[in-house]
Amino acid sequence: MHKTLSAIVLSVILVACGTSGLSPLRGTGDLGIIVERASGSVLIVDTSEHEVLHRVTGLGDLSHASAVFARDARYAFIFGRDGALTKLDLLTGQIAARNQHSGNSIGGAISQDGRHIAVSNYEPGGVRVFSSDKLELVKDFPATRKPDGGGSKTVGLVDAPGNRFVYSLFDTGEIWMVDMDTPSQIKKFTQVGRQPYDGLLTPDGRFYIAGLFGEDGMALLDLWHPEQGVQRILPGYGRGEEKLPVYKMPHLEGWAVAGRLAFVPAVGHHQVLVVDTNDWQQVDTIAVHGQPIFVMSQPGGRQVWVNFAYPRNRHIQVIDVESREVIHQFEAGDTALHMEFAPRGEEVWISVRDDNKVCIYDTETFDEKTCLKAEKPSGIFFSHRAHKIGL
Amino acid sequence: MHKTLSAIVLSVILVACGTSGLSPLRGTGDLGIIVERASGSVLIVDTSEHEVLHRVTGLGDLSHASAVFARDARYAFIFGRDGALTKLDLLTGQIAARNQHSGNSIGGAISQDGRHIAVSNYEPGGVRVFSSDKLELVKDFPATRKPDGGGSKTVGLVDAPGNRFVYSLFDTGEIWMVDMDTPSQIKKFTQVGRQPYDGLLTPDGRFYIAGLFGEDGMALLDLWHPEQGVQRILPGYGRGEEKLPVYKMPHLEGWAVAGRLAFVPAVGHHQVLVVDTNDWQQVDTIAVHGQPIFVMSQPGGRQVWVNFAYPRNRHIQVIDVESREVIHQFEAGDTALHMEFAPRGEEVWISVRDDNKVCIYDTETFDEKTCLKAEKPSGIFFSHRAHKIGL
Repeated sequence: MHKTLSAIVLSVILVACGTSGLSPLRGTGDLGIIVERASGSVLIVDTSEHEVLHRVTGLGDLSHASAVFARDARYAFIFGRDGALTKLDLLTGQIAARNQHSGNSIGGAISQDGRHIAVSNYEPGGVRVFSSDKLELVKDFPATRKPDGGGSKTVGLVDAPGNRFVYSLFDTGEIWMVDMDTPSQIKKFTQVGRQPYDGLLTPDGRFYIAGLFGEDGMALLDLWHPEQGVQRILPGYGRGEEKLPVYKMPHLEGWAVAGRLAFVPAVGHHQVLVVDTNDWQQVDTIAVHGQPIFVMSQPGGRQVWVNFAYPRNRHIQVIDVESREVIHQFEAGDTALHMEFAPRGEEVWISVRDDNKVCIYDTETFDEKTCLKAEKPSGIFFSHRAHKIGL
Repeated sequence: MHKTLSAIVLSVILVACGTSGLSPLRGTGDLGIIVERASGSVLIVDTSEHEVLHRVTGLGDLSHASAVFARDARYAFIFGRDGALTKLDLLTGQIAARNQHSGNSIGGAISQDGRHIAVSNYEPGGVRVFSSDKLELVKDFPATRKPDGGGSKTVGLVDAPGNRFVYSLFDTGEIWMVDMDTPSQIKKFTQVGRQPYDGLLTPDGRFYIAGLFGEDGMALLDLWHPEQGVQRILPGYGRGEEKLPVYKMPHLEGWAVAGRLAFVPAVGHHQVLVVDTNDWQQVDTIAVHGQPIFVMSQPGGRQVWVNFAYPRNRHIQVIDVESREVIHQFEAGDTALHMEFAPRGEEVWISVRDDNKVCIYDTETFDEKTCLKAEKPSGIFFSHRAHKIGL
């Protein structure tokens, strides 16, 4: 009798509280995740209280993992290096769905309407699109075949306005644009340059830019005018003729666009380049501490924060956009890998991998507010990304 | 015995589910509110499903009501015309806190760190700041006294980076800036122009601009350089010497900033003005259907949507930013009052007051997707505003 009653009570609770178990109601606008790359886990964090809510394990190989968010900001979609796509419930810390879709993948995007998740694959190449509710395969976009067989690796996948996805084909030097409302019509731009290795969309959703590994310069596609085709910009951008030792190719999604200027990590040089986005000419060079990896704009665009490649990866520098001068620098710790700003810019979170911590800084005073423990943290992603184009 | 058991079950459920009663877990990134001005109520809407979740009544006089959102996107703070400030729980539809703080107020803002809610008052003038958790009075900033007694009306209150609030004093022609970290030090700019009636902050958080009712021109404060004081811009902006009949002064918070250009509603004229934000010079004029009220930029900035004052308030026009041409127009219905874009720009919601409906349009095809019933709807506010500066 007693056991029956307990069972009834428990099931009523579970029904009454939805599928959530005992998770309390809360908003999802101030949640985020921190990727723990070595242990295949992520931390779910509360950015208001600066605390860890859940540690979720069993996500596979998370080196270079990235994430996007559902339009309700409840779910994160995490792209693992091993071809796994995981839908994570930020409220409960439970895995809502998971799909081992390929052998080897690199990043993804969520469509403007929130219905589709696209993943770009190294192996077997191409892009696959899944439903955001249950991660069911909706569409497969195989890539152009390489001369030696197999589909081209795809990289630099972004969402774009008009329910589009745009991405680059590494092996065959192409940029493709697909429209999820008319998926059979793929716009293909060929011979855009040798070995595009990454891509970005400007924050206004207009320009797609691919970096080239196989030659200098970049490929630019104006999504407002695809009929004009792909143009080459910044002809000197890259490793150059001397083939400088490059410890790590900089991330393009780290480009900071502040007003009409873009702040761009130079390749191999200890420089941040300033580019006028009106005509894509380089207008200035800022000397910095090392080879920049991420060059990120504070929301509002007054500051640009920079971290660096090995062996200068303990430091962070802050550039004042107006004067284009380094106004602050500090040692964050051993291997300061990634940065993420609070959506209104008052704080920045920095993962310091080999010190096993994530530290939070005030962007006005530069004071360290607190640090959270994390195991080999890398990427940090906050849920307001749900509302951004091209992230 | 049975009753006791039921009571136990019920209380366990309530404890297990938190203070939420039986509301299910859900994300808050795709919620919003629609103000029903005549009935003192608001609708809580789900922008993914296009449905009304709750109608909340008893909010008092909501003519010209506006709202801001907590940084967790769970709570809306609604500023009523009658001096009431209401904290609304979007998950449960319950009023979490309410404060009748003054006799007559007009708008408010939430601080960058999310801890403070500021309200600007007509009567007795000045600005009051409340804690965002319980709406307890934290700070009172009385305004300069008018010659005939009483504090100046305050208008155009916005939040700004650095935990600041900026606002204008209508009767005494001032702009004040307060820093919530050092609230005793108020920066006061006097003689900024006659009768500032509204203000806006540019989306990057840099420029505060006040419109003037008592003379032509506008007052501009560069928050990166407050030491330069307030400058006058757009000397021809206003009702002009002929004192055109102006049915309604346009809203300044409706200014659309797209790239380096601002699209500004002309006063009295059937025009949208194009202003270069580099030097604040007017560079173009676009002829439109009536006296514009709201001139709003689609996220990404490719389109600008315009609605109009009486008697031309049935229509909406869409301007293409690149060509600066009206590319689409349509009749939304009787008195199309307010517009709100989905955060990534794929939809716009328009309240059509005297048809008692809010209609949702696809910004790519311009198709009407659906309409929701609402009683005399006016302002529409989506929860992603939680993550924006100056809204």
